[in-house]
Amino acid sequence: MGNIHGHLLRIATFGESHGPGIGVVIDGCPPRLPLDLAFVRAELARRRPGQSDLTTQRKEADEVEVLSGVSADGLTLGTPLALLIRNTDQRGSAYAEMRAAYRPSHADFTYDAKYGIRAVEGGGRASARETAARVAAGAVAKLILRRALGATVTAWVESVHDIDAPRPSKVPTAAAIEASPTRCPDKAAAARMEARIREARSRGDSVGGVIRCVIEGAGAGLGSPVFDRLEADLAKAMLSLPATKGFEIGSGFAGTRLMGSEHNDAFVRKGARIRTATNRSGGIQGGISNGEPIEFRVAFKPTATVLLEQATVDRAGKPTKLTARGRHDPCVLPRAVPIVEAMAALVLADHWLRDRAQNLPLARRAR
Amino acid sequence: MGNIHGHLLRIATFGESHGPGIGVVIDGCPPRLPLDLAFVRAELARRRPGQSDLTTQRKEADEVEVLSGVSADGLTLGTPLALLIRNTDQRGSAYAEMRAAYRPSHADFTYDAKYGIRAVEGGGRASARETAARVAAGAVAKLILRRALGATVTAWVESVHDIDAPRPSKVPTAAAIEASPTRCPDKAAAARMEARIREARSRGDSVGGVIRCVIEGAGAGLGSPVFDRLEADLAKAMLSLPATKGFEIGSGFAGTRLMGSEHNDAFVRKGARIRTATNRSGGIQGGISNGEPIEFRVAFKPTATVLLEQATVDRAGKPTKLTARGRHDPCVLPRAVPIVEAMAALVLADHWLRDRAQNLPLARRAR
Amino acid sequence: MGNIHGHLLRIATFGESHGPGIGVVIDGCPPRLPLDLAFVRAELARRRPGQSDLTTQRKEADEVEVLSGVSADGLTLGTPLALLIRNTDQRGSAYAEMRAAYRPSHADFTYDAKYGIRAVEGGGRASARETAARVAAGAVAKLILRRALGATVTAWVESVHDIDAPRPSKVPTAAAIEASPTRCPDKAAAARMEARIREARSRGDSVGGVIRCVIEGAGAGLGSPVFDRLEADLAKAMLSLPATKGFEIGSGFAGTRLMGSEHNDAFVRKGARIRTATNRSGGIQGGISNGEPIEFRVAFKPTATVLLEQATVDRAGKPTKLTARGRHDPCVLPRAVPIVEAMAALVLADHWLRDRAQNLPLARRAR
Amino acid sequence: MGNIHGHLLRIATFGESHGPGIGVVIDGCPPRLPLDLAFVRAELARRRPGQSDLTTQRKEADEVEVLSGVSADGLTLGTPLALLIRNTDQRGSAYAEMRAAYRPSHADFTYDAKYGIRAVEGGGRASARETAARVAAGAVAKLILRRALGATVTAWVESVHDIDAPRPSKVPTAAAIEASPTRCPDKAAAARMEARIREARSRGDSVGGVIRCVIEGAGAGLGSPVFDRLEADLAKAMLSLPATKGFEIGSGFAGTRLMGSEHNDAFVRKGARIRTATNRSGGIQGGISNGEPIEFRVAFKPTATVLLEQATVDRAGKPTKLTARGRHDPCVLPRAVPIVEAMAALVLADHWLRDRAQNLPLARRAR
Repeated sequence: MGNIHGHLLRIATFGESHGPGIGVVIDGCPPRLPLDLAFVRAELARRRPGQSDLTTQRKEADEVEVLSGVSADGLTLGTPLALLIRNTDQRGSAYAEMRAAYRPSHADFTYDAKYGIRAVEGGGRASARETAARVAAGAVAKLILRRALGATVTAWVESVHDIDAPRPSKVPTAAAIEASPTRCPDKAAAARMEARIREARSRGDSVGGVIRCVIEGAGAGLGSPVFDRLEADLAKAMLSLPATKGFEIGSGFAGTRLMGSEHNDAFVRKGARIRTATNRSGGIQGGISNGEPIEFRVAFKPTATVLLEQATVDRAGKPTKLTARGRHDPCVLPRAVPIVEAMAALVLADHWLRDRAQNLPLARRAR
Repeated sequence: MGNIHGHLLRIATFGESHGPGIGVVIDGCPPRLPLDLAFVRAELARRRPGQSDLTTQRKEADEVEVLSGVSADGLTLGTPLALLIRNTDQRGSAYAEMRAAYRPSHADFTYDAKYGIRAVEGGGRASARETAARVAAGAVAKLILRRALGATVTAWVESVHDIDAPRPSKVPTAAAIEASPTRCPDKAAAARMEARIREARSRGDSVGGVIRCVIEGAGAGLGSPVFDRLEADLAKAMLSLPATKGFEIGSGFAGTRLMGSEHNDAFVRKGARIRTATNRSGGIQGGISNGEPIEFRVAFKPTATVLLEQATVDRAGKPTKLTARGRHDPCVLPRAVPIVEAMAALVLADHWLRDRAQNLPLARRAR
Repeated sequence: MGNIHGHLLRIATFGESHGPGIGVVIDGCPPRLPLDLAFVRAELARRRPGQSDLTTQRKEADEVEVLSGVSADGLTLGTPLALLIRNTDQRGSAYAEMRAAYRPSHADFTYDAKYGIRAVEGGGRASARETAARVAAGAVAKLILRRALGATVTAWVESVHDIDAPRPSKVPTAAAIEASPTRCPDKAAAARMEARIREARSRGDSVGGVIRCVIEGAGAGLGSPVFDRLEADLAKAMLSLPATKGFEIGSGFAGTRLMGSEHNDAFVRKGARIRTATNRSGGIQGGISNGEPIEFRVAFKPTATVLLEQATVDRAGKPTKLTARGRHDPCVLPRAVPIVEAMAALVLADHWLRDRAQNLPLARRAR
Repeated sequence: MGNIHGHLLRIATFGESHGPGIGVVIDGCPPRLPLDLAFVRAELARRRPGQSDLTTQRKEADEVEVLSGVSADGLTLGTPLALLIRNTDQRGSAYAEMRAAYRPSHADFTYDAKYGIRAVEGGGRASARETAARVAAGAVAKLILRRALGATVTAWVESVHDIDAPRPSKVPTAAAIEASPTRCPDKAAAARMEARIREARSRGDSVGGVIRCVIEGAGAGLGSPVFDRLEADLAKAMLSLPATKGFEIGSGFAGTRLMGSEHNDAFVRKGARIRTATNRSGGIQGGISNGEPIEFRVAFKPTATVLLEQATVDRAGKPTKLTARGRHDPCVLPRAVPIVEAMAALVLADHWLRDRAQNLPLARRAR
């Protein structure tokens, strides 16, 4: 269970990190959408390992094959899109010693506790590799949002370890974000982050950080009151990502330090639109988007795989030592940027479909 | 949409703050569970307004009526439980002036944008009153968890505005938490919080804060990989609560400041069980509970209703001033404690049912 | 489980036949729909027992209370509609003897097998009383369909026991159907059916029959391929009704006796529309409505409650005799007509919302 | 939408008949189940075209590839199983002329009406080819049922056109069913059916028929009251199959001709079990299995593809003539047998998981 996401735009993902491949079935995609496969590939490239020396050196071609759902001229058919990405780098030998010993802060122990079995090589489904399927699906969601609403989803690295980039006055351009392998658009901070990540790598250690994401152009009216609030579904989507430990919408935890009179966003008129003077709400009020940029932050812990000796136990509970060998990813933040965007896009597109189903005028359908 | 929660233990809530009443239908409750109605009422009493001078003085008897699902001798039947709480204090006149002007950081504007209509009196469904239905359902979930797992859910107020209570060395007792109207178990901090809330009240202002919640006894194996991770569903449940702005599991945002070698929780053997030496994971690894206490924090912004003049616009976008009158809730934190617990219990009970469906041995059913 | 129906227009029903009441929560209803409460009451009146001497004499006022979801001026708010119908005739004494003995072809035994407990008085949830909540929800669905599509749902009794009414050349009017307490629009057949039902009643026996239902005006495009075909969801909805044993769409079982060349519906042009010359498809092709009338039949077995001595066993499996006393319903068909219509309307309205969510042009939302 | 089935054992299928391939993702499969791939292949072979001269001569190797969810030693991991079947015979040229003209009683017109686009070659998703994914998933469900309950699902052809096989006194063996290419276990009837199908084929015409299915060993307690009755979910599953027009459980439409006193199934004691003397209920009472064999019938219309000239219209509504060329399937019944079994097994396994989630004793889980 737990491998299907969404209510109207529903995705089912599959695949272990060291099996034949991973992939996704997307059910509910609107028809007649040009499936820009180059864009899907570009998004996958942003997630791919080995982009720079800051991330894991696992080699993955990430060639995506479209198994269904697209017409001969590249338009979606309204039927399920199925996307398959073959695994090419299936080196499992480095994991041999992990079969017996539980890697600290990995899912080895909990998988055993739950299922009584697990794919020992490479973490199976509890692997960052699984997120490639999300990025592929998220690319489709981005195409929907762009065409339907003109909306864009932009994430970037805001902090790595204790290095914080200043908050930019406006949403950075894609070029600014992609300029550094850190995906931090602030040049000075990016340089320091690079150094910190390299330092962690050289010590066989790892660092975490925070990603900020802004959705522009979603308009007012997306989300719903009570259980499926837009921020609730965003929070779920973000906390469903490996290594995440926290989520903030708008003012977040810092907002708890303000008085109500300081925190409230005054409504003002700007041109023909009603807007807010500030955006501590993060673009969502009462669970529904208010037309301001939707803005949230996601905390990623330092990667659990470190190349240092760690104390642990084996499956029988016997104390042992474990030293991971081989490739390791000293910082997932740069690669997590497109993953955060993908999940945000999936949530938004789903809510957009839900909203128009319920709330468009009850007029006779023109067919 | 958006008023149904859960996959196996499913609840559907209804009701506006100033209509005839609010309530909940609970589908999927296991049969033969003694429905301890006194406990349900006690939980509702913890959420009820007017408990102390720290919260809104709205009077609500919150008498719960069981409409279905229980046998003559008080056992659940396995059929839907329906619980109805009549509204008794339906004073809507104080809201008259809010019909035209959008209250800042309320849902007035977004409801209009989405639905083109709203129940103007008292916020309709975008009201804290809606949470009483959650508390009633959560009480049933707590009864399930207690009986099935011996698990308990305990929340308390950790901070109000800029006053932080020290983190206790072990989970506080119910008595310690209920000892102060703030529901902060640290006496010194509680006293300062009380003063701060009264001060906000006297100024017609409001304050927010943070609630910490710990689930003990859930055992290992609850939750699932990928989309329905236990922390993901907890995050969604928490961010579905009014006024919440953030969620942290385990080390949260602070954990991003640690190195991987500092953050990892070493496995150790304690008696017959495999446990972790530390709990930065917050009791969940790979989306699945590991048997340690499940621990998370929730940020609540200061209440949007303040008795100070605020700038806003009317429905036509024309600038105007708004001063709320009458009752106001200077701090929702104390009343939010049982609500946080209720949503946590609903998530846990749902995942417990899901887990035993899939993962119990495939033995022939003993019937 | 199993008490929630629909994907976008979702209803959750509750209530035992002899508890405080029954009701329904409707989530996902479009906003700004005038809730014609007189119509809801009229639909409930068509289902109510005691309409004529052909049905059970149980007295039920079926007064419906709207607990939420409607504005002061009677428009839906887009939030959940909750409708409550109090039970007024809670005579349970006639059921006393049924506590021990399993009534043949009732749900007594299976409820015990599944839940290990049941509400012994009046059948609990396994009672025709439960369908009142469906009729109330179905009335709302009819209002949606009428306003959105101009679509109508019309059912009538086509056969009772071995008396078959001839198939009318066009869909009968409501007046023609309601003219006879049998709800068979063919006068001659209706008279014979009346006599047959009275004869069964006088013998303490019961009869079944077939209801035909036609949906006009739904237009082309509702439904979806593969699992959620329109006829599949209609079949599920019909077989979810108490006492149903069969479902046919279009040509049904008789269609299996035709050659393909006889069965196919030729496409023809009628005015500006593409239509079919015949309608053996029953208005659905490939799971999707084709604009022709959607036409199906539902088989209802004779009621299980008969006032004749029957052999059975008690809970311990010991053979015993059972003779039901008191009220009994010799034929459910007349009262089942509005229930069939209600479920059909709920399915259609749900699919209409689903269709417009996915398939309206991907244009920017006009807000 | 509409390509995901089930609540706990959920399958998502994908694939067009003439695209790269078709497949299924199975989420929720219990872990540690030996995935008997030879059995999956054998089931697919029973559905495969070209088994005999009675069915279409389309050549499909139907080689299934397991993309995920299985351990190195062939046990399910509890994570999604993904099964891919490549299309090998993608001859689309025979369909060229169908691009413009709507084939009578096919989904060409309704797909266009709904999606405004369709995969013209081979019917796209509205093709019998899609059912291979269901058979693969159904094979997994059968393995679950066999291991968990010892339950078996057996279907066979009961009638073809106007040739009815007598109802056997007990459930036929697999050998008896597979003995004839018709999958009718009655030798005399099978011979006549064969002749009738060959006759239809020689005339370029087609015939339909009825399949009967019996589930033995499911035990009592599966299913649920109200919306998700076991027969309701079976009816939906069957009517979701291409070419189906009707469903009957137990006594079905014929049962409406009986009096209640004739129809009721008397409870009797047989050994230690409570059983019924007759089984007009078809193994389900009040929506829940009663331990008797679950027995239902499904009507399949004659195939829409006939090699005779038919009147139709083109996309613009202009009258035209259409004569299908090439391969055609004069009778789908023999190949539909494993498909009916597959869908029945999926429904049963899902309900078995649902039942044990809710109704096992609330005892502490042994971990």
